[in-house]
Amino acid sequence: MVGQKLKVAIAGLGRMGARHAMHFYGLTPRADLIAASSPEQKELDWAAEALVGTRTYLDYDEMLRTEIKNGLQAVVIASATAVHAEQAIKAIKLGLHVLCEKPLSTNAEISQSVVTAYRESQKTHPSQKVICGFSRRFDASYRDAHEKMTAGLIGTPSVFRSQTCDKLDPSGFFVAYAEFSGGIFVDCSIHDIDLALWFFGEDSKVKSVSAVGITAVEPDLRKFNDRDNAVAVIEFYNGKIAQLYCSRMMAAGQEDTSEIIGTKGKLSINMQPQTNLVNIYENSGVRREIPPHYYGRFRDAFIQEANEFTACCLDDTEPPMRLEGAVNAVRIGQALQESLLSGKRIDFDEAGNRLEEPIRARL
Amino acid sequence: MVGQKLKVAIAGLGRMGARHAMHFYGLTPRADLIAASSPEQKELDWAAEALVGTRTYLDYDEMLRTEIKNGLQAVVIASATAVHAEQAIKAIKLGLHVLCEKPLSTNAEISQSVVTAYRESQKTHPSQKVICGFSRRFDASYRDAHEKMTAGLIGTPSVFRSQTCDKLDPSGFFVAYAEFSGGIFVDCSIHDIDLALWFFGEDSKVKSVSAVGITAVEPDLRKFNDRDNAVAVIEFYNGKIAQLYCSRMMAAGQEDTSEIIGTKGKLSINMQPQTNLVNIYENSGVRREIPPHYYGRFRDAFIQEANEFTACCLDDTEPPMRLEGAVNAVRIGQALQESLLSGKRIDFDEAGNRLEEPIRARL
Amino acid sequence: MVGQKLKVAIAGLGRMGARHAMHFYGLTPRADLIAASSPEQKELDWAAEALVGTRTYLDYDEMLRTEIKNGLQAVVIASATAVHAEQAIKAIKLGLHVLCEKPLSTNAEISQSVVTAYRESQKTHPSQKVICGFSRRFDASYRDAHEKMTAGLIGTPSVFRSQTCDKLDPSGFFVAYAEFSGGIFVDCSIHDIDLALWFFGEDSKVKSVSAVGITAVEPDLRKFNDRDNAVAVIEFYNGKIAQLYCSRMMAAGQEDTSEIIGTKGKLSINMQPQTNLVNIYENSGVRREIPPHYYGRFRDAFIQEANEFTACCLDDTEPPMRLEGAVNAVRIGQALQESLLSGKRIDFDEAGNRLEEPIRARL
Amino acid sequence: MVGQKLKVAIAGLGRMGARHAMHFYGLTPRADLIAASSPEQKELDWAAEALVGTRTYLDYDEMLRTEIKNGLQAVVIASATAVHAEQAIKAIKLGLHVLCEKPLSTNAEISQSVVTAYRESQKTHPSQKVICGFSRRFDASYRDAHEKMTAGLIGTPSVFRSQTCDKLDPSGFFVAYAEFSGGIFVDCSIHDIDLALWFFGEDSKVKSVSAVGITAVEPDLRKFNDRDNAVAVIEFYNGKIAQLYCSRMMAAGQEDTSEIIGTKGKLSINMQPQTNLVNIYENSGVRREIPPHYYGRFRDAFIQEANEFTACCLDDTEPPMRLEGAVNAVRIGQALQESLLSGKRIDFDEAGNRLEEPIRARL
Repeated sequence: MVGQKLKVAIAGLGRMGARHAMHFYGLTPRADLIAASSPEQKELDWAAEALVGTRTYLDYDEMLRTEIKNGLQAVVIASATAVHAEQAIKAIKLGLHVLCEKPLSTNAEISQSVVTAYRESQKTHPSQKVICGFSRRFDASYRDAHEKMTAGLIGTPSVFRSQTCDKLDPSGFFVAYAEFSGGIFVDCSIHDIDLALWFFGEDSKVKSVSAVGITAVEPDLRKFNDRDNAVAVIEFYNGKIAQLYCSRMMAAGQEDTSEIIGTKGKLSINMQPQTNLVNIYENSGVRREIPPHYYGRFRDAFIQEANEFTACCLDDTEPPMRLEGAVNAVRIGQALQESLLSGKRIDFDEAGNRLEEPIRARL
Repeated sequence: MVGQKLKVAIAGLGRMGARHAMHFYGLTPRADLIAASSPEQKELDWAAEALVGTRTYLDYDEMLRTEIKNGLQAVVIASATAVHAEQAIKAIKLGLHVLCEKPLSTNAEISQSVVTAYRESQKTHPSQKVICGFSRRFDASYRDAHEKMTAGLIGTPSVFRSQTCDKLDPSGFFVAYAEFSGGIFVDCSIHDIDLALWFFGEDSKVKSVSAVGITAVEPDLRKFNDRDNAVAVIEFYNGKIAQLYCSRMMAAGQEDTSEIIGTKGKLSINMQPQTNLVNIYENSGVRREIPPHYYGRFRDAFIQEANEFTACCLDDTEPPMRLEGAVNAVRIGQALQESLLSGKRIDFDEAGNRLEEPIRARL
Repeated sequence: MVGQKLKVAIAGLGRMGARHAMHFYGLTPRADLIAASSPEQKELDWAAEALVGTRTYLDYDEMLRTEIKNGLQAVVIASATAVHAEQAIKAIKLGLHVLCEKPLSTNAEISQSVVTAYRESQKTHPSQKVICGFSRRFDASYRDAHEKMTAGLIGTPSVFRSQTCDKLDPSGFFVAYAEFSGGIFVDCSIHDIDLALWFFGEDSKVKSVSAVGITAVEPDLRKFNDRDNAVAVIEFYNGKIAQLYCSRMMAAGQEDTSEIIGTKGKLSINMQPQTNLVNIYENSGVRREIPPHYYGRFRDAFIQEANEFTACCLDDTEPPMRLEGAVNAVRIGQALQESLLSGKRIDFDEAGNRLEEPIRARL
Repeated sequence: MVGQKLKVAIAGLGRMGARHAMHFYGLTPRADLIAASSPEQKELDWAAEALVGTRTYLDYDEMLRTEIKNGLQAVVIASATAVHAEQAIKAIKLGLHVLCEKPLSTNAEISQSVVTAYRESQKTHPSQKVICGFSRRFDASYRDAHEKMTAGLIGTPSVFRSQTCDKLDPSGFFVAYAEFSGGIFVDCSIHDIDLALWFFGEDSKVKSVSAVGITAVEPDLRKFNDRDNAVAVIEFYNGKIAQLYCSRMMAAGQEDTSEIIGTKGKLSINMQPQTNLVNIYENSGVRREIPPHYYGRFRDAFIQEANEFTACCLDDTEPPMRLEGAVNAVRIGQALQESLLSGKRIDFDEAGNRLEEPIRARL
């Protein structure tokens, strides 16, 4: 009953895929989820029950072929990271709108190929929208902070400190996962990198990156060139710094916090993580719980993302972010991962080319 | 596309009515908002634009007559409090499900007449659901606290302290509003009273009530037998106490907080109000904003309410609360309002009858 | 080496007495603790070791007689409440300065007799200082709040909400203690009453008091006409209200919090109790500890009290508070305790006389 | 009257010197401040009034010569950093106990000369105590965190994150000061470095250091090879990392916070800075103030330091920290300052020697 609706299909019904599906199915009034694909039959079985009326496919290509005849307008890609780029490009070439889960790829060049395909396709489909979902940009608190900064509340933003820290998964699943994740900076810190670019300006140019890490709980991560705790610094040519921390080892829950320090003030986001507004007073003190997972913290942001993506497709308005930024973030994440392993700072000139030797002036 | 949907009409499109309408229109996947009524043409004009496809009526009775033929199943009553009971009873007599905004009436007897109509109608419509929306019962934090209490985390709950405090409206609108609101205890503290009954047990019997109030900012409230700040105590026969505070005078925003103190611990809800997770560091210190209105604090709870009401109607499951509680809360609120004016504590026997003289044993 | 020092003796070396002794001994540079008395030999033995050089006495009178020859100038009374008044009066009649622990007496008339003795003695000893130690008035946070209020930050203060809540002592010692404590309002809430008078103005006139209480953990308290949880309201003739809560049942520690609500803002004190600045992140969430006892919260205030008392004696400046206030607080505490038992509100005329029947105008 | 007292002289009566003097004069019961020196007559004039009875000297050497005859036992060095080492060594050679303000010197070699002098002197004065005052080690919150960590509460400590961030001084005094401060890492982060060594173990060996900085508000700092905001990483050979942030640009006040992240939990210190327990509710939200200066945050720690130093001298007990640590902290701070300027990471072998080229294994 909500005017004309956007006809949406989703690729991937795993943990995040199922959530995206539910958001488009029941929490995005202007969208109509008409189809879903997954290579796993049991995920399709789940969809049959949870997403009544949605057509299901084991094969992504077949879904596209069939549903395009049913008026399919947009595809949400929430499948395994390894196929993000390929699936996105297929949909792009059909002129469909695309919302792709982050990252486009763990590889910057492959990520760039999605952007290239999009910009090419736009020549014939000028209203086409393709975005990579950096969920935090849709979070009410980050937005409020960004607006306050833009309004001048903290003067010139100069230092950005941010962390993405997962609750320790005692099953150690993240070790096996590390083989394909691109490493902790591409998997976790990518959010903080994207935020740094958002707060400092998308056109900020990286001057250097450096990183250091340890394996405090899972030495096996070294097999996949990964670490369970790492810290990093990104210098920008506009005289700004981002300082990052990422971890797989939080005891209490997901701790994703950020600070933007300006010449006249500071904005902090989530410095006191909390699940809700309850405090528990007991013999050992006063306690509050904090969300165990990323989704617990950012569920509302994901729903907002679904609604805004839908709106920009239907209304042909500016997408909430430019796709190029997603490539930039992966590029920086990859460089940090390399620095983490090599023990070397990596320097760039203002055109973005790597410098073999630092050319930094002494003062 | 979400299976069979509940066909819902809404009565009233004022401030809260429009919000309820939006919730059922776009944020309740299993509901289909088919009609809306309001005596104000400009509200219907708004609906025509915001609720595309919803049929609109200037007359509530006509809406019922017409829509019942279109398969109407449920009515949401969000009109002026004065017509809540009458509209609810009309819908009840037609066998429709009803979600009525609080209070059923500012008068306990009239409130009771809604319950009576419902219980009578149920004889022929055993699956009919009628609830009065006490939104806080759908709030994630209150629910978490209630679950923790029920699980025994704080031993025996003994003292309930709660407040409903509105941000000062400098326009003074609340003075004119006081003529019809039933007074600050019926209008604001009704939530805290309902929560006390929920946390202490719906069958808790009131032993005494007493209240005191002042007019710190709006002496004109006295014309309508109201106050802008008031405090109250409710004693229960099970050895429990509720201590309440209500105000129209908060500077920073809506401050609705509660504490449940048990023999082994305490649970607090919202003791540190906040709009979001942002903190602002500036020359005068560290600051956070807090929601300016009740809706800013409880929006998610209202949406949850819409979804749960819809689900219990469609699935014929137990409603989330019993309608009788809504009468009980008004009865207590009215007694508090009386005590506020008379300066006298009002005592009750265990059957709920008023005692002219306190019969409390000296020890 | 700190200029001329005030020669001080202390009466009572129990829990609080020993603390006061240590404050005057080592943390009050301008004071010289020269003597201490206690009826308990083992406390004197402790003093011999901890207060090297301080002369000790089993008998208070003997201490006064002897030390006055040694130049004794001031007496700190930290003995059992039952002898506060008697010991204070003896010292007053000798022209000595007196700092008496609260309360002067659990009985308002006896408390008044100390004031009478003081004002009489002042005729011949115009520089004599006698104060009753309401420690919270020396607390940095309460002072900051009071200054901000006085500076107009919150407009006209209208509602004062305050609590004194002890950590549950599982030994149940407080039951036996209740026989002599004067009851929970005289023992605990006396602080909140004093604060109400401080924040609302010492000359605020009580219009009514009422109280209700329960025995949630210690029914035996009823033998001594006491309760373990109680709530109260004090109405003042200047259109202000104080709402109090006191408890012996806190799980997490001492929770003494206050709020002053004015027509333009609010000040809160200690709404988030904490022992220090440490937070503990562990599997069950984020936790902070809170002080287990009153002293843990207010140690610095007691030290400040010792130093300010010393300074006003040496410099002949205005004492930090008037002694009359201590009587007023006990009088209100006693009335609340009576209301707690009788189940009746107690009303007063503007001259402070009790009214048998409320004469409150209906509107 | 507190048993035998330690006879103490102080060198330097500037801002921090005057505070130390007051602590030893009036807040350290077991100490007797007998003399003070300063090259500034007006500071001696202040002392004559504030430190009644303390002998004053324009010349440090003369103070030592004269007071040693009066039984001088200990010297507190709170003069300009440039003369710390020289004054300390003179006192050490006389067999006096020494409490030297941090740093011993901004130069690691000079710092080491103090240690060498001390260890040499101890051969003939085995009870001599010399410490460098790292005040945070005396702070109740840091101590509580250290004890909890030592008790195993967080498993193996792995990542230490810490910051020393000053409130922006709009006078820009810190620019001129930078000429002599040793740079922001030696002046500010030295505390965080010392804490890292304390929490990770004094024998932790540095593997690498790297730093990056900007001049966001005071470009003139570059003249003195300094920055106003800088970030750093210290890697240790035991698989631990410290991540630091220092700034001269905080809007709200002094923000010194730390986190110790272990394999089973995390401890945070002062993540929510505050001056006291007051919150201010006003139209713009809820606000709390935070201390404007380092001393506002750590006053109690300084007093504790004075008392513990005094106690270890009088009782011939182990000093609260080893002097060698102070050299280690300066050495790391200097290396960070070098890295800040050179743009290069500096690597060390396990014996503490610098490596020209990183030898880090690839995995």
